[in-house]
Amino acid sequence: MQIKVMTNILDSNDQVAAAVHERLSAAGIFVINLLGSPGCGKTSLLENTIAGLKNEISMAVIEGDLFTAKDAERIEQYGVPVVQINTGGGCHLDANMVNNVLDSLDLRALDLIVIENVGNLVCPAEFNIGEDVKVTVLSITEGEDKPLKYPLIFKQASVVILNKVDLLPYTSFDMQAAITDITSINPDALLVQASCRSGVGLPAWYDWLKEQIRIKQARSM
Amino acid sequence: MQIKVMTNILDSNDQVAAAVHERLSAAGIFVINLLGSPGCGKTSLLENTIAGLKNEISMAVIEGDLFTAKDAERIEQYGVPVVQINTGGGCHLDANMVNNVLDSLDLRALDLIVIENVGNLVCPAEFNIGEDVKVTVLSITEGEDKPLKYPLIFKQASVVILNKVDLLPYTSFDMQAAITDITSINPDALLVQASCRSGVGLPAWYDWLKEQIRIKQARSM
Repeated sequence: MQIKVMTNILDSNDQVAAAVHERLSAAGIFVINLLGSPGCGKTSLLENTIAGLKNEISMAVIEGDLFTAKDAERIEQYGVPVVQINTGGGCHLDANMVNNVLDSLDLRALDLIVIENVGNLVCPAEFNIGEDVKVTVLSITEGEDKPLKYPLIFKQASVVILNKVDLLPYTSFDMQAAITDITSINPDALLVQASCRSGVGLPAWYDWLKEQIRIKQARSM
Repeated sequence: MQIKVMTNILDSNDQVAAAVHERLSAAGIFVINLLGSPGCGKTSLLENTIAGLKNEISMAVIEGDLFTAKDAERIEQYGVPVVQINTGGGCHLDANMVNNVLDSLDLRALDLIVIENVGNLVCPAEFNIGEDVKVTVLSITEGEDKPLKYPLIFKQASVVILNKVDLLPYTSFDMQAAITDITSINPDALLVQASCRSGVGLPAWYDWLKEQIRIKQARSM
């Protein structure tokens, strides 16, 4: 009985997600569902990406949080459109929440929308929200054992960003083990070792992102 | 309709949690529900606590994880009884899961059971599992903004451990802001600044723990 209810919720969510995806694809917008633990560096990645690519890409951000608008306030300072979704304690975004805020963005002007999900390695992976791809951020301070412990969110990611590599000298993080485990779960993911603090590694992420936007726009013409 | 289902689940969970709590209290066992993000240091805190107190306290550990037994394997090396619960992808432990494993522990021999919940700052805070207290670990690498972003799990904690202070020199973590925010949410929580890597700060945690066990045992006599 409980499983049946859950199946219905996921079916209904998938229908709305498909509609969101169709609408944004028609506008030629590439959409990322940005995932990761609390404090892994999702917002910092966004800040860097906006600063690094704002002259080349027209982007907007949808911020998902339980209660506050702290992340949206950080993003706003970078001068891109940002919309806050508060889940009111809910542990993930769903497609309806995203659908409900789309009208507040000028879709004709955008190349890219990044939707920063609630900080959580479990639940957000289970709900499509209309994205083209999922990108998962893992801070190296979380430990190399996390991919096997939370496999779904790594299995679904097109890109895994191993963030905070500037802290590698001060931790016992085993990068080779992390790479081996992520690759065993998801051989197709692009792995990027980066530090949003120092900027190291981010150009590979920017290059991937620009290429995806180019492909998306070519398809929508 | 959806809310009604959820209310029933929580009611039912609370009944089982009360039964678990009653059984463990009758045995004079102090029970901790250990919470925090993936990689905040919950298992490291347990390793330190076992090593530091094994001559004074008889303890057991219940490990909650989605799939693996990685944490239970770490704890087992320290020579204390450990039971693994795998949620099969579920984002939190519930009272039934805990109830189902109690018979595999020799309750007559124990002073303390620590239940390490799934790494997640959201969902585990919503489910009582029979504990006396919740303890929340926040790694300073997660950033000082997390208490206001995930308030419930800090509001419910009797102790908040600010872990990985050895990394403070290499981050921009604002300890005073974190303390101010946690205190505004939960003025009664004991705050412990610690490093499970260096051991600094942990004696305050050990002292609190021993005092709670003493109180619990005095009450159960």
